[in-house]
Amino acid sequence: MLEDKNQERTSLEKLGEFGLIDHLTKNFELKQPSSIIGVGDDAAVMDYNGKKTVLSTDMLVEGVHFDLSYMPLKHLGYKSVMVNLSDIYAMNAIATQVTVSLAISNRFPLEALEEFYAGVALACKLYNVDLVGGDTTSSARGMIISVTAIGAANESDIVYRKGGKPNDLLVVTGDIGGAYLGLQVLEREKEVFKVNPNSQPDLEPYSYIVERQLKPEARKDIVELLKKLEVKPTSMIDISDGLSSEVIHLCKHSDVGCNVFEEKIPLDPTVISASEEFKMDSTMIALSGGEDYELLFTIDQADFPKIKGNPNLTVIGHMTEKNEGIHLITRGEAKIPITAQGWNSFNE
Amino acid sequence: MLEDKNQERTSLEKLGEFGLIDHLTKNFELKQPSSIIGVGDDAAVMDYNGKKTVLSTDMLVEGVHFDLSYMPLKHLGYKSVMVNLSDIYAMNAIATQVTVSLAISNRFPLEALEEFYAGVALACKLYNVDLVGGDTTSSARGMIISVTAIGAANESDIVYRKGGKPNDLLVVTGDIGGAYLGLQVLEREKEVFKVNPNSQPDLEPYSYIVERQLKPEARKDIVELLKKLEVKPTSMIDISDGLSSEVIHLCKHSDVGCNVFEEKIPLDPTVISASEEFKMDSTMIALSGGEDYELLFTIDQADFPKIKGNPNLTVIGHMTEKNEGIHLITRGEAKIPITAQGWNSFNE
Repeated sequence: MLEDKNQERTSLEKLGEFGLIDHLTKNFELKQPSSIIGVGDDAAVMDYNGKKTVLSTDMLVEGVHFDLSYMPLKHLGYKSVMVNLSDIYAMNAIATQVTVSLAISNRFPLEALEEFYAGVALACKLYNVDLVGGDTTSSARGMIISVTAIGAANESDIVYRKGGKPNDLLVVTGDIGGAYLGLQVLEREKEVFKVNPNSQPDLEPYSYIVERQLKPEARKDIVELLKKLEVKPTSMIDISDGLSSEVIHLCKHSDVGCNVFEEKIPLDPTVISASEEFKMDSTMIALSGGEDYELLFTIDQADFPKIKGNPNLTVIGHMTEKNEGIHLITRGEAKIPITAQGWNSFNE
Repeated sequence: MLEDKNQERTSLEKLGEFGLIDHLTKNFELKQPSSIIGVGDDAAVMDYNGKKTVLSTDMLVEGVHFDLSYMPLKHLGYKSVMVNLSDIYAMNAIATQVTVSLAISNRFPLEALEEFYAGVALACKLYNVDLVGGDTTSSARGMIISVTAIGAANESDIVYRKGGKPNDLLVVTGDIGGAYLGLQVLEREKEVFKVNPNSQPDLEPYSYIVERQLKPEARKDIVELLKKLEVKPTSMIDISDGLSSEVIHLCKHSDVGCNVFEEKIPLDPTVISASEEFKMDSTMIALSGGEDYELLFTIDQADFPKIKGNPNLTVIGHMTEKNEGIHLITRGEAKIPITAQGWNSFNE
């Protein structure tokens, strides 16, 4: 039986580093007009015809950012790209290329990497970005992923973290808190599995929040929607570390204060029910959960009619003078200072 | 005494991820006209005024690519940048920006990261590139570095791995094999130290090759020199994995064969003497050693008068028709096929 299992596994030593990159990237086509040369030379070559180039990079580390015991590799490949595209969209730019680098221990067979790259390929296809480079090397332990995303935008379209003004409205896309609760569900099932490997977890009631954790979608559609609505946010950031942390970033960079209204924070019904099940406060989860990859932005009040009633966009507060501070206005109308409780990898 | 030691150490938990990035990058200025926004937003913003953008990324993993028992962190920061700039210069482009991402275990105090970033800063200063982004996160074990370098070039100046023609001359910059032998010296001293921690290693006779290993320099000067000499190589690559591996890459991409003449391979006298001491063949080291970060390129024979006699450039062979194969012509005039023996991280 052991031999049968091994037949499906191709050791990485056999392929070597160059063969591996060729093998893993051979099905990636270049579709962006700005992609001149992709994988296979010393560097990728791109051309933006005078547009601004936007670039973002992130690292994901096994045991810190993901747990392979419940994160399928294809999802991981997809999510690694999403995390970076999200940063490009948070600049109000359109992502055009990514590079994906991997450090992996020899315990991973080729087929595992193929799964990972299948996820990368799917993300590239759905979001219309080209894989143009990367590096693949061995690690002493575990899997470490580094992705760099490149995007393009007209100078006049780029939105920074700075730029928000007092009285601007604070808007969040989609709903938040789901990714964090999805992680709690997966962690719980992992513990159950450890005790009883024959248990059949029923994840069906949690499918929305589990998908938010395993297969988040970056909000390219919002960049397109805002263009269509002719709304240019005054400041913007993506929600990777939790709402409170991102609100603080916007306030700090824009030199303003903020009031966030608890009752306005958009929560999916599954988030509310799972919060109750886990005996956690759903507002706290929205503020501190992270990994939702929604966008958080400020708009001039004059733009409110343009976004009013759009199901993708929720006004959750407004910016104030800096000296008024950053507060959550609770359902009970208490005013609580918001402190950074976003995810901090060094505090684990 | 233990308390005294600890006074100099700042734990990473104290600073948190955002504070850490701010702290480590606060002394980096943007000097490139193409750098619009650096660290501190969701993405860096660059503008190339219609020039081609060139981008390269590499990962360095503790225990695979470097050993902190003899690699000072400042050197490591410097080398991490060099490895990537080298890829940009190998496109005949000028590097303009880098992003540096780090995954590190909690065993590293802040001061260690400051050392690393001091090396990054020195590299940025000397090579006139801007640090515009990166990510800092924790790792389960060890230190993993991912650097992305961005460069710019006029389309007509870019040199690819493809483009070499039969009868083109094969040229190498500087001398090769030193970095690999430097590593052998450092490995030997590490073993000696394990046996006798009081031994005082005398590295003076090996200073050139040890520096080649610990503080390589990417050949920006060669890109400038070639421009001045009005020579545009027909194909080019940097020597990161060893001469044989790079020659094969050029031949494969250019669809040609090659003859390399053993007697022409430029070796520093220290490389020759250290080879003898380690009972290794100096040609084999040059062919397979790697990490020299010199440039290897082909030029049209008509350009030979322009490079003749330049101490930085050595003609070591010529390209042939593809069906003639890739060979080393030894001092004894034997013709030996060159096979890829470059460094392969999965074979360790």
